[in-house]
Order: sequence, then C-alpha cells, then structure tokens
Amino acid sequence: MTNHPTSPGPVPVLAPDQLKRVHAWWRAANYLSVGQIYLMDNPLLREPLLPEHIKPRLLGHWGTTPGLNFIYAHLNRAIMERDLDMMYIMGPGHGGPGPVAAAWLEGSYSETYPNVSQDAAGMKLLFHQFSFPGGIPSHVAPETPGSIHEGGELGYALSHAYGAAFDNPDLIVAAVVGDGEAETGPLAASWHSNKFINPARDGTVLPILHLNGYKIANPTILDRIDRDELDGLLRGYGHTPYYVEGEDPEQMHQDFARILDACLTEIREIKRRAREDGRTERPRWPMIVLRSPKGWTGPAEVDGQKVEGSWRSHQVPFSTARDNDAHRQVLEGWLRSYRPEELFNETGAPVEAIRTLHPEGTRRMSANPHANGGMLLRDLRMPDFRDYAVPVTEPGTGAVESTRVLGEMLRDVVTRNMDNFRVFAPDENNSNRLGSVLEATDRAWNARTVPEDDHLARDGRVMEILSEHTCQGWLEGYLLSGRHGFFSCYEGFVHIVDSMFNQHAKWLHTTNGIEWRRPVASLNYLLTSHVWRQDNNGFSHQDPGFIDHVINKKPEVIRVYLPPDANTLLSVADHCLRSRQYVNVIVAGKQPQLQFLDMPSAIVHCTKGIGVWDWASSDADVEADVVMGCAGDVPTMETLAAVDILRSHFPDLRIRVVNVVDLMRLQDDAENPHGLPHRDFDALFTADKPVIFAYHGYPWLIHRLTYRRTNHHNFHVRGYKEEGTTTTPFDMCVLNQIDRFNLAIDVIDRVPRLQGTSAHVREELKNKLVAHSEYIRVHGEDMPEIRNWQWSPNQPSEETTEEPV
Amino acid sequence: MTNHPTSPGPVPVLAPDQLKRVHAWWRAANYLSVGQIYLMDNPLLREPLLPEHIKPRLLGHWGTTPGLNFIYAHLNRAIMERDLDMMYIMGPGHGGPGPVAAAWLEGSYSETYPNVSQDAAGMKLLFHQFSFPGGIPSHVAPETPGSIHEGGELGYALSHAYGAAFDNPDLIVAAVVGDGEAETGPLAASWHSNKFINPARDGTVLPILHLNGYKIANPTILDRIDRDELDGLLRGYGHTPYYVEGEDPEQMHQDFARILDACLTEIREIKRRAREDGRTERPRWPMIVLRSPKGWTGPAEVDGQKVEGSWRSHQVPFSTARDNDAHRQVLEGWLRSYRPEELFNETGAPVEAIRTLHPEGTRRMSANPHANGGMLLRDLRMPDFRDYAVPVTEPGTGAVESTRVLGEMLRDVVTRNMDNFRVFAPDENNSNRLGSVLEATDRAWNARTVPEDDHLARDGRVMEILSEHTCQGWLEGYLLSGRHGFFSCYEGFVHIVDSMFNQHAKWLHTTNGIEWRRPVASLNYLLTSHVWRQDNNGFSHQDPGFIDHVINKKPEVIRVYLPPDANTLLSVADHCLRSRQYVNVIVAGKQPQLQFLDMPSAIVHCTKGIGVWDWASSDADVEADVVMGCAGDVPTMETLAAVDILRSHFPDLRIRVVNVVDLMRLQDDAENPHGLPHRDFDALFTADKPVIFAYHGYPWLIHRLTYRRTNHHNFHVRGYKEEGTTTTPFDMCVLNQIDRFNLAIDVIDRVPRLQGTSAHVREELKNKLVAHSEYIRVHGEDMPEIRNWQWSPNQPSEETTEEPV
Repeated sequence: MTNHPTSPGPVPVLAPDQLKRVHAWWRAANYLSVGQIYLMDNPLLREPLLPEHIKPRLLGHWGTTPGLNFIYAHLNRAIMERDLDMMYIMGPGHGGPGPVAAAWLEGSYSETYPNVSQDAAGMKLLFHQFSFPGGIPSHVAPETPGSIHEGGELGYALSHAYGAAFDNPDLIVAAVVGDGEAETGPLAASWHSNKFINPARDGTVLPILHLNGYKIANPTILDRIDRDELDGLLRGYGHTPYYVEGEDPEQMHQDFARILDACLTEIREIKRRAREDGRTERPRWPMIVLRSPKGWTGPAEVDGQKVEGSWRSHQVPFSTARDNDAHRQVLEGWLRSYRPEELFNETGAPVEAIRTLHPEGTRRMSANPHANGGMLLRDLRMPDFRDYAVPVTEPGTGAVESTRVLGEMLRDVVTRNMDNFRVFAPDENNSNRLGSVLEATDRAWNARTVPEDDHLARDGRVMEILSEHTCQGWLEGYLLSGRHGFFSCYEGFVHIVDSMFNQHAKWLHTTNGIEWRRPVASLNYLLTSHVWRQDNNGFSHQDPGFIDHVINKKPEVIRVYLPPDANTLLSVADHCLRSRQYVNVIVAGKQPQLQFLDMPSAIVHCTKGIGVWDWASSDADVEADVVMGCAGDVPTMETLAAVDILRSHFPDLRIRVVNVVDLMRLQDDAENPHGLPHRDFDALFTADKPVIFAYHGYPWLIHRLTYRRTNHHNFHVRGYKEEGTTTTPFDMCVLNQIDRFNLAIDVIDRVPRLQGTSAHVREELKNKLVAHSEYIRVHGEDMPEIRNWQWSPNQPSEETTEEPV
Repeated sequence: MTNHPTSPGPVPVLAPDQLKRVHAWWRAANYLSVGQIYLMDNPLLREPLLPEHIKPRLLGHWGTTPGLNFIYAHLNRAIMERDLDMMYIMGPGHGGPGPVAAAWLEGSYSETYPNVSQDAAGMKLLFHQFSFPGGIPSHVAPETPGSIHEGGELGYALSHAYGAAFDNPDLIVAAVVGDGEAETGPLAASWHSNKFINPARDGTVLPILHLNGYKIANPTILDRIDRDELDGLLRGYGHTPYYVEGEDPEQMHQDFARILDACLTEIREIKRRAREDGRTERPRWPMIVLRSPKGWTGPAEVDGQKVEGSWRSHQVPFSTARDNDAHRQVLEGWLRSYRPEELFNETGAPVEAIRTLHPEGTRRMSANPHANGGMLLRDLRMPDFRDYAVPVTEPGTGAVESTRVLGEMLRDVVTRNMDNFRVFAPDENNSNRLGSVLEATDRAWNARTVPEDDHLARDGRVMEILSEHTCQGWLEGYLLSGRHGFFSCYEGFVHIVDSMFNQHAKWLHTTNGIEWRRPVASLNYLLTSHVWRQDNNGFSHQDPGFIDHVINKKPEVIRVYLPPDANTLLSVADHCLRSRQYVNVIVAGKQPQLQFLDMPSAIVHCTKGIGVWDWASSDADVEADVVMGCAGDVPTMETLAAVDILRSHFPDLRIRVVNVVDLMRLQDDAENPHGLPHRDFDALFTADKPVIFAYHGYPWLIHRLTYRRTNHHNFHVRGYKEEGTTTTPFDMCVLNQIDRFNLAIDVIDRVPRLQGTSAHVREELKNKLVAHSEYIRVHGEDMPEIRNWQWSPNQPSEETTEEPV
C-alpha cells in the first residue's frame, strides 16, 4: 500500500562549494553546541583542553541538537535562495544549544545580548552562560532569539506552528517534531490541524518529523514501525511524506537539500493554485521525515559503549570530562573534529564563508519578527461594548443568556479585525451561546463538506476541533506571533490544558523580564457551562478548580473575573481583549439568568472590580450587622435571594452586599499588583462583622486570598464541595449548601443579635430545604417559587434604622 | 495506496430468524433508550402519549446511542456463539441510555437494582430515574453495570481498554471510539497501545471506530477525510481496518455480523499463532469502522429540518414534546416505530425471543466481573519493605538516592506478582531511578528492536510510552479491572493528567457510595524529579501544584505523602500499595540526599504521619521557643541545616522540629478522616509559639490545611513561589527563600527573645546569602560547606535549660 516516489536519487543539488559551506555552517553550529554544554573557558581550543576549562556541572541535551542544526543550515540556504519569510519551531526544544548557536552565528544573538559578542570573548561567555547559574536555560526558552516555543513540556510544536501560520499568508513555519514528542497526545492530535488551514489566506507549516530513534531511555514508536505503517500514518494525517535517511553527512546534505527544494516548490505551487486558480480542495501538504542518528557527529563510543546513534546521547554523552583524562581526551577530539580553526577567524568571529551562509536582517530565523510577536501587534479595533448593553431597569430581573450577549460583541470584534483575531473552542462555540459570531464568519474547515453542515468555510475564523490541547496550542501560537484571540471552554474540562497554561504563564512571566521581548496580547479564557449548571451532564463535568490552578502562578501575569451578569461580562471582556501579557480567566454561565446592573453601573463596578451593591444592602449610613459577599453569577443570585428572605423575616437587619468581579481585588496590594489596600478592604468587609461569602468555586480560595485581611477570621465561605450530579440547578446549590436558605441560615447562625431570637425562622428555612428536595424528586424540576424568583426592590433604607428583632 | 479487501459482500451471515431477533434486540434497546430520555410514565405506550407522560426537563444524548446499541446486539450474538469473555467500553459514554437499556434487557440491571424490575413497573422506574433528580446520570457512570469507563470527559476509551486487557489473556475488550473523541489528544496517542500488548499473555482490544459524522455542532475530521487517508491512518496505527457502512438496518446487520465474525476469527488465529506457534512478530490487529447515521432510527426530520444523520441528533432531538402536540406526535410515532408490543410481554418484561439473545451470568457484558474489578482483586504478595532499609546510624548523614532504594522493593513486588502488577512511566523509569525494576522484568515492547536496545521484551511489565495520558489511562483500566500498579512521573508534568485524575477520583468517590462496586486498588503516583532539583531543566519543569489540585477532591479518596528519606519512602510505598480506593500521591526526590531515620524510627514516624524529631529538637522537657515544621525532602534538609545554624549561635534556643509525612494529618479529624485531633495538633505545634514551616510546594496549601488550628495565625510558611530556573540545588532554595539561612532569619525575626539581641547574627546570615550567590555565579556549583553539609548530633538536652542569649 505504500510507494516511495521520492527516495533519494543520485542527482546532487548542491554544488561542491555550496556543499562545503553548508557543511561548514553545520560544523560550526555543532561545535558551538558542544562548547555550550561542556566548556567554560578556552572556547576556541587555542590551547590544550584542561580540567578547569570544563564546567563542574555538565547539563544539557546533545542528542537532538545536531539534527536541529542540520535542518537550520538547510533552511537558511533555502531562505536565501528563495527569499523566504520563515520561522523555526523546534519540538525537541531541549536541544537548546542549537538555536543559541545559530543565533550567534547569524549575529542576532550579539545584537540582542551585546555582551555576548561575535568574538572569542563573546564565545567564551556564550559557552559559560549555558545552563550555568545566572545564565540561560538548557532548553529553548523565551531568552532564545527567534523562538516562540518553550523547550520544556513536549507536544505543542505543530499546534504552535499552525497558530503562527494562521493569517500570515506568506510565512512558512518549519516545525520539527521529535519522534519522542510524537508519542504525546497533544502532538498526535495536532497533525490534523491541516484541515483548518487555508492555502490562500494562511501561511504554511512544513512538518519535519525527526526520527532519531530514541527518547531518554526507550526507542520511539515511530522509528520502530514498518515503513508502510509510517507512510500510511503520515498520509492519513493529510501529508505527503518525503524521506531523508542516513548518516553520511555528504549524502544527507544532498538528499535533504533536494527534498527541501521539492517541498518548497510544491508548497509554492499549492499556494499558487489556491490563490491564482481559485482551487479549493484541501491540498496534501508535503512534509519531511529525517531519519538520522541521535547525537550525530558525537563520539561513536565511550568506554566501549555505543553513544552516537544510541539513547546514551540523549543528554550529556559522558559527564566526567573534568576529572577523567581519557574522557577529556574524547571531548577534545570530538570538538576538534569540527575543525574550529577553519570556522572562526583570528578574533573568534565566524569566517566569511559561514557569515555569507545566513540571510540578513529579519530574514534570519533568529530575528524573524513573527517570533517576537509584540513587535507586530496591532491594537484590536474594538466596537463600543456599551452598544450591546442589556437594558436593566430593575436589578435582579430578566432572564438573559449572558454569553449570548457577549457573542454579539465578539461577532463585531471579528468583523472589525478580519486579519488578526480568531475565536477558539473545542466544538463548543454554539453550545457556549457564542453563536452570533457565526453571523460574521464561519468555522474554519478545509475538509469535505455536505449540505447539512452549518457555517463551515475555508476562510472561517472560528476554530473548532474537539481537542482542548489543539485549541490552546493554536491560540498560543497565534498570540505569540502578534495577534489576538478568545478561547471558550467548558469549565469542567479546561483542566485538560492545565499544564499548557503553566507553560504559557511561565513564558509570559519570563518575558516580562526580557526587555527585547515586546508585550503580546493576553490569552483570554471564557469558562462556561460551569459547575452550577450541569443539568445535562452531572458530576463528571463539575470542577471549578482551574482558578486555583491559575492562581498558583505569579500574580503579575494572571487575572480572574467572575462577572455576575451580561453587562459586567461585556465590560470585563472588553478589558481583557485590550490587555497585554496576561492570562485572563473569565467565568460566566450560559443559562438564562437574572440581570443586576445597567451598563453605567456595570462599568463602575467592573472598574473597581469589587464593591457594595447599595440597592441590595440595608445598612445605609449605619454599621452593618453582616456582610454578604458573593463572586460568580449563581452565588450572586443565591446571595440576593437570601437577602430577600432575611429582609422578609428581619426587616431591621442591616445587611451589606459586596459583589466581587475581579478576584484579585481580594488580595492586598503588597501581595498582588491588582490587590485592594487594606483600608479599602476593611471599609467594604468591616473589621469585625461576620462575612458570609458565596463563591463560585472551591471555598478555600477565598480564605487564601483574604488571609492577610483584618476581618479574615470572620469569613465564612460557601462554595463547591464536590457534591451533586445530574439534578436541577437549585438542587446543585442545595447539595453544596450555597443556596439561599442555607446562606440565610448562615447569617442567622453568625449574627449575634439574631441568635436565640430566630430559632423559628431557622426551622422554617430548614423545612423549605426539605420541601424543595421532595418537590424536585417528584416533579423533576425546581419549585416555581425558586424558578421564578426575582429580586424585589428594597424597602427604603430609613426603615432599617430601628433596632432589629 | 489503499485496498479494501473486505468491503461488504453479498453473502448473508445471519439466518432470517437470527436477523429478525438481532434486529428485535436492537429495537428494544433503542426503545428503552428513547424512553429513558423522554418518558416518566406510560412506559409501554399502552395508552396514547399525553403531556404528563413526558419529563419536564429533557436531558440526554440520543445521537450516539443507537450505534452503541447496534454494536451491543452484535457482540452479544458473538459472545453466545463463541463463548467469549468480553467487556464493552463506550468511548462516546454520553450515550448513557444505551448500556442501561442493555443491562435491563440482560436482567443484570434488575439484579443490581431490584426495584428496577424487569416488568412494566420497573421499566417506568428505569425511564423515570434517567437524568432525573435523585436518579442516575445521563452518561455511562459508575452506577452503570458493566462499565469501567465514565462517559464524561472524552479520549480515554482505548487506553482504558488496553489497561483492562493487560494480563487477562482470554478477555476481549470491545472499545467503541467516537469520531468526535478521536480528535482528542489522549485518544489519538492511545492507538499506538498495540505496540505494548502481547497476544500470548494479554487479552485483545477490538477497536470499533464509530463514524457518525458529527460532534455537538461540527462534522468530525475522520468522517470527512478521503478513504485512502482514513485507511492509511488506521493501518499506520497498526491495525487492519474493516468497514461497515450504510443505514439500511438489514444490510447493516448482515455486514456487521460478517465483519465481526471475521475479526474474531482473525483474533483467535493471532493468539493461536502467538501461543502455539510461538510467533513473536507484532500482529496487525483487526478493527472495525462503523459508519452509520447519527441518531440512527430517530425521526428523519422535525419541523422540516434534518435530524437523523445530522448534528441535531446529538442530544435531545426536539425538546418541546411535552407542550407541543405536533412534536409529541413525532415522539409517539418514533417510539411506536420500534413496535414495543412485539418486544415486551404482558408484564412488561422482554419477550422470550429477546431474552434468549443475550448470554447468561458473567458472560453478560453488563455483569462481566472484569468491569467490577474489586470482585477479582487479589492482595499483592508484598516483600517485607524492612528488608530494603538503608542503614542510618546517625541521622542527617549519607547520600542515598531514595527512589533507587524504592526501585529495589518495586523489583521484588514485580517478581512476586507477575500477573497482576505493573509499573508505568512516561519514558522516565530509569531517569526516576527505579531502574532496579528492570532486573525483574523488561519494558513492554512489541515493535521492532535493535541490538543497542535496553531491556525491551514482549512480556515486560514496565509500561513506558512518552504519553502521560496513555500511562494514566492504562493504569486506570488496569486498576478498575482488579489489578495493582505504580506510576512514576516528573512532578512538573503530572499536570498533564490533571483532568484524568479528576475523573478517576470522582469515579472512586462515587463508587464508595455504590454497594455492589467492590473496592479496587489505589492509584499510586510517585512524583519525582521535583521542583527543587531541576538543575538540568529549569523553570519550565517546576510546578509542585499537583498536590493542590488533588486536595480539591473529597478527602475520603485522596492521600498525599512527603517522605523525607529512603526508609520513610519504603514505609509509605508499602502502605500505598496495600491500600484500596485511594489516589495516593507520593512526592520524593531522586537525587542523593541525606538520610534521617533508621527503619524502626521510619515505621513509627510514617505510622503517625507526623511527629516531633526529638534528636533534632532542643526543647526536651521545657516549652519550645519556636517550632520548625517541615514537609518534603529538601525542606526537611534545609530545616535541619537551619537548626544547626541556630544552635551554633543560640545554644539555649529551644527549637522543636516537627516533620510531616502524611499531609492530611495537618487537617483536623472533622474535616478529614485522616486528620489529627486538635489536641494532638496543639501538642505538636503549641498553642501560641511561632511556627516556621518549610513546605515542598506552594506555601498556601499549609495555611489551608492548618486553617482551623489554634495556632494557625503563628504559622509562617516557606515554599515554592515560582522563582528560579537552571541553577544549583541550593540556589533554588535561596531564590524561593526556603534555604537554611532564610529559615534561620525567619526564626530570629519571630522569636521574641531573640529580637533586639541578634542583629549581628541576622547580618551574618544575610552575608552568607550574598557570598553564596557570588560563589555559584563564579564556580557554577554550590559552596562546599553547603554541598557537604551533614547534621551534627545535638548537644545533650540538659544544656538547654539555661536562659538563651
């Protein structure tokens, strides 16, 4: 079932001089890579290698590096010959020495870090700093010029590459996929990204599957399946694979050059057909399979054990070069095998033949502005979010799907930014009630369609694939290359990308400290279909803990918003879409819900992020008996319903309602740049009154955030405690004791003036809870008084000045 | 490149009567499925359908269900004809009504839930309870007989199926993969599981890719790629695909029966060759592609819009059947199209022709004991963990890799349990220093090998694939089918399986409340290569937050252990391997580290989970000035080093050292069944003295756990705060202020009797920190006094009774 039409033929593509120079570039990059791993002095080997030239702690990954360098050399030749706009994404990003070496050879490293100059002193520093305290990480990192792809966790090379390629019609993203990485789920899923790319509008991803055979200790699956299987797999992913296999450098140079030329010509033709001939069928994009030895050009054997071509090359092939004379000799021989004296001139700079082998300026992959996306970032053209306001004449009325309202705004954000904004969702855009977006654009889709399909198009801007990993990876690539986006996801399943969030947040945190990295647009999550409304799905879909996960990262890069209704959601979303260098998490329900604030009030409230809702409070001009705090739409509704109940029983009870939109405001300004000063916080929550706080998520987070507050020991927090399954919305609240009756009981139990005098009310509320449970188990829905509850306006506050019962 | 040797031919496999009966079974299952989604009364339609027969809230997923039922009917025929031991895993597990209907038809539902009897009253209850408050979830769930696979999050069908098949040589696990689910990363990766299964020793997974074309709103990728691509992909995954495609029931029954027979015959032959002929090449396992309409047999159109064969069938095809007469008529017609009067007898039980169409007893997939693994669970044959004890004559000496010691014990656990214990790791077993396991077994590997490979074998019991998702899924399937396992993972990347952990912990929590579900072995994680030792990797690999994630789940199902040395690790691991129904998280470093407790002391300490280390304390018989708490190996070492420093400066300072192994002990026994009563806690941490607590992870967790404790406001916690990158071990501590000098300064700053008198010591310690930083930035390694620090035994406690300086 296979054919190999492109197995290497005998015709050389590179002229002898060209071959020699490409090979020299590769030798130089390899030399500099080994130097980074091993040396702290004597960088040009102008004296014999001594123990003190070698780092005391040898850290780094050699195995994948020569392959990365080999590809780099060839891409450079192609960029120059064809004047290509090209980025390089290294899936096996633990091969950090490679791109650092390349950037130094291209001069961009010294432009970025002038002290690491292109001479002997700079080379010494280049070597010394690598994996050294106070230096640079051993992986590809934000510090690496030309990279948008952290070399830590594996699996995101292709999704990042596609994210960068979207809406960059002339960009080619060469993406190396390691054969270890290829075993990860996120990578395995992301191959199908080619069903979502439009050759007429988008750039191109050229995957290069690097089969070097081993992971840390094990062989790789893709290296050990039969050729017909591998070929079928890659064709099944939608590619036409071309193979370059071997270990003889000369032959491999010729083969890779020929195959790369063929692929680039094919890509050009695909794009020409799409643009000029208007061809719309999904192309089968070319890709390259490079099979080369792990640790290629490294020592063949050390102490009689195979190293080159073995898993022993994965990290530092031998680590006793400082103390062991024989090993140091192996190292010196290895380094000298690259003939550094031919590669670097008197001053230590690359010789002319090497310096003419890379492109200039922003054509250098290490200086491509797409890899420092903030340089290209344009502000979104935003509609006025106030235009989408839901009319709210009385707070606590209405039945609006807030995310549907947001969808209307997002629709117009799309319309105004048809080249640098996309929305992402794992097959949930409509389920999350953002369907209005489809009035402005379609879902991106480049595979077969049938008449019943809904809003699919090759140039759609709604990115839907049933893979949270791929959505996240696309969005990260899109943002890091200088564009904007919005990711909506079921709250319960966003944990699928916990680890990807980690890596992105760490990237942002690190880039905050790197001057040449320009700020990029924030990564905006809308978490909906949230824990309190899983009528259809139940226990497995209930987990509000993404917020907890997010808050473990540095406060400088994360924000969490819980808008209680549509107008606050609009205001928050507008703010997030304009922001830079954050991960913004917005949590908002998609079900019809009461509306509380008209737009002017919403703007004031969201600007402060936290505030007293006077219209719901009864403590005007006097001291409150109790503060009822709330964060999240359902907790807010239940809090107000509890206030309603309490008012009817205790007309003189002085209740203050504080709603929190911006969760970070709960922390103090010393801990968190967005925190509220203690004085302001105390003014809201008092210094000594009971606080009953209804929170959307796991209750402990509120204690954590308010831990340093004066009145913290009076905080009593209700939230999700892993109770409930397929049941009614109100029953979910009851099962987790965040419902109106339990909140009212909490107040009765904690306000001293109510204790002893209100046992009958407490009993009545308990009976309500029992009645509710009986009702829904018979009728299958909430009691009408619950379903139809709306806020009834306050009595004038004058009446509350009397003594309470 | 494709061939379709098995496209359906004309030869009928089913005799007319058999065809009729299989079809009747399918009709019955479909009828019962629709009934569950829509009806709360009139289950047999013996009167006209009235609004009050229909549930007020219609919840459930119809789209995938008829396909699941179709397959079930055919598997049953095959089980009976061939006397197969078969399990059924439904990837599209949102089709919950299907397996519930099947279990009811097979009688096992009524055996499990006697009130849901096999008659009209039982059928009414069956319908009423589905997705109804107080009833059962809409998804396949722990409540569903015959399932080990929650129908919530998608993507784990194949890895669960393989987990169940390992070491069950005669089991066949039919695993339906939804075409939506197939887009997820975890599913995409798990196809390659067939490189890890041994036909001679293990059972068989028969994947059935169900192409019904749509997800919630979008088409599926695999339904919309060309046949040659799909075929290449599946062959690339290592399978031989057979296709059953169409919508005419009669033809589809014949086709599916023939293909299923062919697959089962092929499987039998593969296993025969492996067992009898000793053939060792990796077989290309058969699989089935079933392409059928979404919502098959449902209404073709509603209100002029296509429903059957469209995404509109995904959930409830029309939801106004209670109020809308026309829609109710459609529903009634739909239900009657299955001709219930032919399917159920007078009493409402399935007619004879249907009841003879399923196997009996444990051959029923809904009663297969492998799907209630606790029934089959055997205790591990454990070696005596004390035999692996590291000799510790003086605490705080030595340089032992604790996980390497654990590896020796695991080796012998493997040896003694060669049929029901496996270890799992994402290519990290040796990196995590568990290499001794390979003395007892090999790494499972059924793909090509070459001479340089290390310990690969078809019957290996070390499961290594570079996919945390697949490792976790295999292990879950292995445990839920009644076996034992151990998963080691880099701490920083275990977040990759956060969401899978959620689902498993929720499964355990739910099964704790289901009497017929028997307890299964715990899921044991060893997290190593932890945050404090990322010399080689840096910032991207640093995240100790999995513990925070885990602790959001119910305390009844989770445990977290931080053994500080080898002997405590052995004791903890022994305990975890013997336990049931937990997720146990063990965090322990793999680097050489000081040893503190000899085995008798370790056992005492681990049994209590928390305790004073008298030998390190100087408060004997008098009241402590300060308590120094510690949890985790590196924090424990730094705490002791700080005590050492403090003793040298303040010989009379009364320090109590409390080490925590079992993190749950920090909570009180009201909150957590493993919590420590308040009195005991106060005895350890005092009621009013400063507590300096050095914790392995994010410091807030300690505040959370000790929140209700008397002395909580005096807790000062140090932990990881997202600082540090590629640097020395000690520098990591310094950057996060958990090092010995900062801990000593914390004590000076918080013990009243030291304030004012110890400014010079404070200054000296600050200078040490500066000196350290300068040293490592020059030398690239920690100062010798840090690297070589060992605990020096206490002065006799008599000397501490004087007044301190």
